[in-house]
Amino acid sequence: MTADILNPFLQAVMDVLRTMAHVEPRRGNPRLKGQEDGCYDVSGVVGLTGQVQGFVSLSFQESAALHVVGSFVGEPALAVDEHVKDAVGELANMVAGGAKSALAAAGYDLRISIPSVIVGPGHTISRPRGIPCIEIPFETERGPFTVDLCLKLEP
Amino acid sequence: MTADILNPFLQAVMDVLRTMAHVEPRRGNPRLKGQEDGCYDVSGVVGLTGQVQGFVSLSFQESAALHVVGSFVGEPALAVDEHVKDAVGELANMVAGGAKSALAAAGYDLRISIPSVIVGPGHTISRPRGIPCIEIPFETERGPFTVDLCLKLEP
Repeated sequence: MTADILNPFLQAVMDVLRTMAHVEPRRGNPRLKGQEDGCYDVSGVVGLTGQVQGFVSLSFQESAALHVVGSFVGEPALAVDEHVKDAVGELANMVAGGAKSALAAAGYDLRISIPSVIVGPGHTISRPRGIPCIEIPFETERGPFTVDLCLKLEP
Repeated sequence: MTADILNPFLQAVMDVLRTMAHVEPRRGNPRLKGQEDGCYDVSGVVGLTGQVQGFVSLSFQESAALHVVGSFVGEPALAVDEHVKDAVGELANMVAGGAKSALAAAGYDLRISIPSVIVGPGHTISRPRGIPCIEIPFETERGPFTVDLCLKLEP
């Protein structure tokens, strides 16, 4: 996965968190996603098709999800309810949409699916076999979230 | 969601389970997916883009996943390991691919994403707001699985 594909997603995460959720996360170093999956409580997953194929996911520990969503919607989020699930899906959608726009401007043809939102204490999102996967850790003042980017370029 | 969209997915599930996994599930009645989500242990999720937008997921309780995957790969599956995760992703991919082929033959343009596989005891897949969602329950001799179909037609 080259920087010209990776960077639009990194940029989109920072843009969406800053401008939409007013949260300034600290970004860790992108790393290859291994078999040792991280565990999360709420994830938004968006499928990518076209020249860039795969998926991007935003996975939150509960405390981070409530913090980011509370800031995003402008009122405290106290539990992972319907509003929080919708908001996590919307954040994932905006990240994928932002990256798609930047990639389209660079000449890549891709489409993004409607987000699916998964809720469950300590769930993991697996690395598909044969697909390059990068995980990018982020830290907020109320806990971590991770962006998984599993994709390949259509030859 | 009309029958001409729903039926290719129902048919693909039965075809894949029968011909690839040699499992003959009993199908329950499709119903609108409500706020009361079912709880699963392993899910494969495939994003759909194009004229048919959304996602399709296959969600298994662990016992059903081990049964279906064991029959699919031809040797007993004893735990949800890398092989089982890969197989659940492959089953979801084949269901989406089968439905895509039937829908393409009927004149619909759609693309399917690489599957993401979620593992976690008792996780749920949420219904996106504003998107019609149907859940179709299936029963195997070792427990249930469910197919969620959340999609809309691009106008």
